[in-house]
Amino acid sequence: MKMKKFLNSPNTLTDEMLEGYGLAAADIVEVRGHLVISKGLKTADRVTVVTMGGSGHEPAQAGFVGEGMLDIQVVGDVFAAPSPQSVYEALQLADKGHGVLLLVLNHAGDMLCANMVIKMAEKAGIKVKKVVTQEDISNAPRSNAADRRGLAGAIPLYHIAAAACREGKTLDEAADLAQKYADSMATISVAVRCATHPANGESFGDLGDEDMEIGMGQHGEGGGGRQPLKTARETISIMADALIKDIPLKRGDKCFVMINGTGATTLMEMFILYKDCVHYLKEQGIEVVANMVGEILTVQEQAGFQLNIAKWDDECLRLWNTPVHTFALSK
Amino acid sequence: MKMKKFLNSPNTLTDEMLEGYGLAAADIVEVRGHLVISKGLKTADRVTVVTMGGSGHEPAQAGFVGEGMLDIQVVGDVFAAPSPQSVYEALQLADKGHGVLLLVLNHAGDMLCANMVIKMAEKAGIKVKKVVTQEDISNAPRSNAADRRGLAGAIPLYHIAAAACREGKTLDEAADLAQKYADSMATISVAVRCATHPANGESFGDLGDEDMEIGMGQHGEGGGGRQPLKTARETISIMADALIKDIPLKRGDKCFVMINGTGATTLMEMFILYKDCVHYLKEQGIEVVANMVGEILTVQEQAGFQLNIAKWDDECLRLWNTPVHTFALSK
Repeated sequence: MKMKKFLNSPNTLTDEMLEGYGLAAADIVEVRGHLVISKGLKTADRVTVVTMGGSGHEPAQAGFVGEGMLDIQVVGDVFAAPSPQSVYEALQLADKGHGVLLLVLNHAGDMLCANMVIKMAEKAGIKVKKVVTQEDISNAPRSNAADRRGLAGAIPLYHIAAAACREGKTLDEAADLAQKYADSMATISVAVRCATHPANGESFGDLGDEDMEIGMGQHGEGGGGRQPLKTARETISIMADALIKDIPLKRGDKCFVMINGTGATTLMEMFILYKDCVHYLKEQGIEVVANMVGEILTVQEQAGFQLNIAKWDDECLRLWNTPVHTFALSK
Repeated sequence: MKMKKFLNSPNTLTDEMLEGYGLAAADIVEVRGHLVISKGLKTADRVTVVTMGGSGHEPAQAGFVGEGMLDIQVVGDVFAAPSPQSVYEALQLADKGHGVLLLVLNHAGDMLCANMVIKMAEKAGIKVKKVVTQEDISNAPRSNAADRRGLAGAIPLYHIAAAACREGKTLDEAADLAQKYADSMATISVAVRCATHPANGESFGDLGDEDMEIGMGQHGEGGGGRQPLKTARETISIMADALIKDIPLKRGDKCFVMINGTGATTLMEMFILYKDCVHYLKEQGIEVVANMVGEILTVQEQAGFQLNIAKWDDECLRLWNTPVHTFALSK
């Protein structure tokens, strides 16, 4: 499908996007180069939370910077890791003497960059703990989680980790909580129509008029689950079942469910999918206690969604229900 | 383009969507049949705000029900007006003895229904004032506003009118304020790829690989402005210029700007468009004092956006900055 987007130049996509975002959310964030900084950082006296990742997935991740969520996102170019220098700057800026929790989605470029920068930061005396989310069940088994991609499941963790930091948790405590969260959730994606790359216009693939692909990564990576498009209910039962087994969830468990539209999938579909998921889990004796439904971490105009399920305890729910004020999540 | 959506049955689209929405936003709304009711309505002792309209435009309008915004939305089937009986029920439920402000987007079915129900309500002793938003500059001149379609410009008015009601304005005062708002704003749309109807799968049209159409209505109505796709900056200058002349805005004026993505257009594009719009207006000496950027009133998976500009005074801005808590807008 030919790309049809309202853009100016392929060379300035991220800069122009960030300028617009900074203007639109001027009460919440300050955009300084490729750093998106919470206005609340200035007066923070606690462990701070930083993340990093390529642009092109809006509102993630920059849309989740603000009070009760991320202190800084370091933005890379479209689908690319940011520069080590910019991540290092972010850590310097974020450190308020209590250390920095660096949350990284598992993608090769981001991991390489994060590991390099942590060494630089340690030399400079900045305490940093890295927690990696790697929850895509489609490209590796749980026993080999280091090969699993990080998908949208990181987003609720931003708020839960930040809420813990606001309550005065130490860096070690916050990192333990984040690691526990990362270990107790899983995501699976499905696409029905592929995205186009905004810089070069190329399509990520062609799923034809009849098929969906379960497991497609958020940069068009194949998932191996190509099959005829099914109803919402059937699709949810396949995907939720795989997640329940992976996490695993059992009768009596409580969970969080996210329906993350990746682009062209409508909110009407997402609400129907969410309803089908709540019913499916209920049949297994699993209760949904919180949710996110909407476009959270997109893949440009890809039609499809990511289903994320996380096993939650009362502490997760309590932290989730604390105040948050960002462009893409406020309550 | 063949429709590829996650649905179950064409006959239950709206019911299933509303069930899912009610589950996802259970802390904010109660869904009762085709009425989406704010949880805050129960204790309201003021003029209340009700709207009506077909489904298929999510998050509008149901996503804007909640504290500081709509008290009730009456939901019709996909792109269809709701039944008079359900609108009448909503007015009965909403009236707290101070009257009801009924905000209607100008579409034939909704208008017919609203006028019928207002007569029924008057007979029953319910005070109702109807204010119509009719701001699509592409299908009629301002002198013939009754022929103009209502587009996404109604959404910020929901919050501003509700904020005025919360401050104790009478029904007449609230209706005057809403009418003044409706008269001082304008919207123009552009599409680059058409939507498909979720019930029958039919496409609203075909804009080919090279063209955009300025003025396309939110149900695929032609706008007459088909032309080769332009850059974000060029597109904004054409559209903003038309709105400035229509409202009209002059040097020194303050305004609100909305970039409403209609479906498959990315938030990356919307931020770039917003930035270009702020710059374009600044060159004309016009200051942007508030904004909404995102998917607000969609047309299923249509790629394109609506640009809404409203002339604002300090009172608009003050009311806008009061608390609001809905699924799709919270601050």
